[in-house]
Amino acid sequence: MEPLGKVFEVEWELDEDELNRGERNRSSSSSNGSFSEEESTRNGELSPSEDYISSTVTLDAVREKPPHQMKQSSSSPEVVEMLKETFSKLLLGEDMSGGEKGVSAALAVSNAITDLSAATFGKVCRLEPLPSEKKLTWKRGMEWLLSVSDYIVELTPSLHTFPDGTKREVMTSRPRQDLYVSLPALLKLDNMIIEVLDGLEHTEFWYVDQEGVLATQSPPPKEKWWLPVPRVPTCGLSGKARKQLQQIRTCTNQILKAAMAINCCTLDDMEVPESYLETLSKNGYTSLEEFINGYNFSDQFSPESLLDCLNLSSQRRALEIADQLEASIHIWCQKTNSKNSKLSWEMVKELVVDADKREVFAYRAESLLTCLRLRFPGLPQTMLHMSKIQHNKDLGKSILESYSRAVQSLAFNIVARIDDLLHVDDLTKPSDPFMSKSQKSPRKALTDYLAIDSKGDHASDDLEGPDSRSAVYQELIVTADELNTFYSCI
Amino acid sequence: MEPLGKVFEVEWELDEDELNRGERNRSSSSSNGSFSEEESTRNGELSPSEDYISSTVTLDAVREKPPHQMKQSSSSPEVVEMLKETFSKLLLGEDMSGGEKGVSAALAVSNAITDLSAATFGKVCRLEPLPSEKKLTWKRGMEWLLSVSDYIVELTPSLHTFPDGTKREVMTSRPRQDLYVSLPALLKLDNMIIEVLDGLEHTEFWYVDQEGVLATQSPPPKEKWWLPVPRVPTCGLSGKARKQLQQIRTCTNQILKAAMAINCCTLDDMEVPESYLETLSKNGYTSLEEFINGYNFSDQFSPESLLDCLNLSSQRRALEIADQLEASIHIWCQKTNSKNSKLSWEMVKELVVDADKREVFAYRAESLLTCLRLRFPGLPQTMLHMSKIQHNKDLGKSILESYSRAVQSLAFNIVARIDDLLHVDDLTKPSDPFMSKSQKSPRKALTDYLAIDSKGDHASDDLEGPDSRSAVYQELIVTADELNTFYSCI
Repeated sequence: MEPLGKVFEVEWELDEDELNRGERNRSSSSSNGSFSEEESTRNGELSPSEDYISSTVTLDAVREKPPHQMKQSSSSPEVVEMLKETFSKLLLGEDMSGGEKGVSAALAVSNAITDLSAATFGKVCRLEPLPSEKKLTWKRGMEWLLSVSDYIVELTPSLHTFPDGTKREVMTSRPRQDLYVSLPALLKLDNMIIEVLDGLEHTEFWYVDQEGVLATQSPPPKEKWWLPVPRVPTCGLSGKARKQLQQIRTCTNQILKAAMAINCCTLDDMEVPESYLETLSKNGYTSLEEFINGYNFSDQFSPESLLDCLNLSSQRRALEIADQLEASIHIWCQKTNSKNSKLSWEMVKELVVDADKREVFAYRAESLLTCLRLRFPGLPQTMLHMSKIQHNKDLGKSILESYSRAVQSLAFNIVARIDDLLHVDDLTKPSDPFMSKSQKSPRKALTDYLAIDSKGDHASDDLEGPDSRSAVYQELIVTADELNTFYSCI
Repeated sequence: MEPLGKVFEVEWELDEDELNRGERNRSSSSSNGSFSEEESTRNGELSPSEDYISSTVTLDAVREKPPHQMKQSSSSPEVVEMLKETFSKLLLGEDMSGGEKGVSAALAVSNAITDLSAATFGKVCRLEPLPSEKKLTWKRGMEWLLSVSDYIVELTPSLHTFPDGTKREVMTSRPRQDLYVSLPALLKLDNMIIEVLDGLEHTEFWYVDQEGVLATQSPPPKEKWWLPVPRVPTCGLSGKARKQLQQIRTCTNQILKAAMAINCCTLDDMEVPESYLETLSKNGYTSLEEFINGYNFSDQFSPESLLDCLNLSSQRRALEIADQLEASIHIWCQKTNSKNSKLSWEMVKELVVDADKREVFAYRAESLLTCLRLRFPGLPQTMLHMSKIQHNKDLGKSILESYSRAVQSLAFNIVARIDDLLHVDDLTKPSDPFMSKSQKSPRKALTDYLAIDSKGDHASDDLEGPDSRSAVYQELIVTADELNTFYSCI
C-alpha cells in the first residue's frame, strides 16, 4: 500500500517550501479557503478529463490572485451583514436570549462548522459536481470561521539584532504549531475533494429516484431508501470510465485516511474532561470487567479474534463496546494522574491487579478499540469524544476537529457512492468466461457492509459477519509509520 | 429643575413614534451607529451657531439614508478584514493562545467597548471637534460591537391568524425589552455628544500647552499637569460665546445624567456574583459595624450629616466607604435569599438585630451610598460593580453597561473642560461694579472640587470640605421621579 507521505509528495503536489517557510503570512491560510464566484463558474465549465487532478484549478493558482480580487465578491454590504450575523451568533454561543446560557466559543465554532458542512454536503447522494452556490457558501463560510485561527499564536524565544548591533533573545509570536501543520493540509484536502466532485460531470452513469424504479426491474428498496439508484448503460461502464472511477475512489480514500488521522490526533490532543472521569461509575466498570473476564485476556491475546467473539450485530452495540473500552483505558491509565489517584486506587484495590497488569490491560483495550474502529469507520462519536468536543475551550483544536470531521464525512460518503455505482456496474455486465470466480463476484457496496450513511440513524441494524467487513476495511488501516511519514512530509 | 423626561421630549426631539413601534426593524439600531466619511466631512464644514443642536445633522437624517450608501465605505476588503479580526479576538476572549484561558464573550465585548472609547476619547483635553478619522473609527467600531445586540431576542406569545382563518397563540421573537428601550437612547446620546464637540469650532477661546505658560503669567502648574491651559481674549469671552458654552454645559450635563441613569439601571439589573457574596468576610463587616456604631444610627437619621462626619478627604477613602456600604446592604438584604441564608443567619445572630432593624439599616446604608455617589460622580467602580461586570455573561447587559459608561465618561470630561474654561474667563474679566459679590466670585472648576479626571490617579488627594461639593453637585441629582419620567418617555 502506498504510504500517505508519498501521496502528499507526488499526487497532491503539496508546496513544501511554502509550508516550511519560517514567517509564512498566516492570512494566506484563510485566503486559501476563499472562493470567488468567478472561479466557481470556471470550474463548472471544465471539460471532463481522465486525469481530473491536473485539469482542475490548483490551490497555487488560487493563491496567485491578488487579495483584493479574491475578496471582491465577499465584501458587498450584504455579505458584511451576513458576516456580522455569523460572528454575533457565535459570540452569543447560540443563546439568542443574551448569551447567559450559551455554549463556549469553541463549541459554537465547532457546531457552526458541523452545521455548515451538513447544509452543504448533507445531500451528496449523487456523484456529480456541487452546485456553484453551495460551493460558494461553503468556501465563504469556512473562510470566516477559519479566520479565527489567524489570531491564534504561540510565543517563542528568538534572537533579535538591535540597531546598535547587539543580539538579544526576545519573544516573538508565530502561528501555533498544530494549526500551522494541520490547517493547510485540511484546506488542501478540502479543495481536493471539491475538485473530485467537480470532475464528475458528463459521466456515463446517471441516477433515477427510487420512486421511478419499478418493482419488476429490481427488488423493492428496503434499505437506503433515501438514495437515488445509480444507472449505467446496458453494456456497463466503459473501461476508461471505470478506471477513472477507481482512480477517484483511491484518491478519496487517501483523503479520508488523512482527514481521519488529523481528527484522531486533534481529539487525542484534547484534555479528558473532569466530568467524563466522574461518570466512570463503578457500574459501567463492572460490566466491562465482566466482558473482559468473559473473553479471557490470555497471554495469546488477539484483538481480531476477541472482536469476532463479541456480539457486534448492530452499530449501537459496537458503539457501546467502544464506549466501555475507552472508559477502561482511562481507568487503567490514570494511575499516574495524581488528581484521580483516589478513584484509581479504590478501583485498583477492588480489582486486585498490580500496576503492570493494568498497563497490559490498557494496552490491550486500546488495540481492541483500534480494531473496532477499523471495522466500523463510520461509527458515531463515542461518549469520550463527545465529552471532549463539548468541554473543549480551545478554538484552534475545535476548528481542526470539526473541519477534519467534515472532510472525513464527505470523503466517506463519496467512497460509498462509488462503491454503490461499481456494484451496479458489476451486476449489469455480462459474465466474462475469462474472469475467475473471485473476480466475477459482485463487489459489495460499502454501505451494504455498514449500513452507515449521512442518514445513519435509518440504517439497518442487521449486518453481515465481521470477517467480510474486516477484509474490506483492511485498506483503511493507517499505520503508525504512515502517520509519521504523513506528518514529516507536511 | 427640568425633569429628564422633558429634556428628551423637547430638546432632544426623540422620535417616540419610532421607538414605540411594535415591530421595529432592529437592524436600524446598528445602522444608527454607522457613520460614513462623507458625513464626518459635512459635519466638519458646519458654521458655528448659537443653537448648535438644530444646526447639526440629526439622527433621523442619518436614518433616512439608504443602507447601501450608509455602508459603502465600511465594506471594503480591508474593513472586512478588520471586522473579522475584531470578532475573532472577541471569540478568543483576548487569549491569543487559543481561547482556553480567555474571558467570557460578554466581558470581551465590554472590554472592547471600553478600549475603543479610551482610544477615541481618552485624550479629549480640549473643547474642539473630534478628528474625522477618530469619529469614523468610533462609529464603525461601535456599529460592529453593537451588531451583536441585533440578535438578542425574547419570545412572547402573540395571536397568529392561520390561512384557514383560525387564530392561535404562537410564540414570536422580538428585541429584548432592555435593549429595545435603552440602546436607541444611548445611540441618541452618543450622536448628541459628538455633535456637541462638532459645534465647538471657530471658537473665541484657544489652548496653550502647560510648557508654554510662563511662571510669571500664572502660578506654576501642580495639578492637572497633563491638560492644556485654556486661554480667552483679554476682555474675556463675548456674551454670545459664554451663553453658548453654558447651553452646551447644560445639554452635556443632561447627557451625563441620562447615561448615568442607564448605567445604574443596567448594573442593578446584573446579578450579584456568588464570588462577591463569598468575599463579604466577617472582618470587612466588623469594620463597617464599627463605623455605623461610631456614627450612631439614631432615629433622626440624615445621610448628608453623617457623610459630613466621615473622613472623605480622598477619593480612595470615599471608594472604601462606598465598598463597605454596598457590602452592608447585601448582608442586610440577603435575609430573603435562601441561597445565602446560612451566612445571613450567622451574621444576624452575631449582630442580635431583628429583621426590621436590618431592613432599616439596609435602607439607610443605601441612602448614604446614594449621597456619596452624588458627592463623587466620578468615583471609580466599586468592588461590587467590578465583580458584576467581570462575572456577567449576558452580552446585552454588557453592551448597555459599557456603552453608557463610555458616554458618561465623555460627558463628564466635557463638563469639566467647560468649567475650567469658564473659570479662566471669570478670572480674566475686569470686575463689574453692578455684579453682586456672590456672582463675581470665580466659579470653581469641576475638577478643582473633585480632582477627578480621565487621569484620575494623578489627582490630588486633598479636597475641600464636603459642603461646597454638595452644593455644586446638587444639580446632578437624578430623582426617582425623573428616572420614571425618563423611562416612560422612551
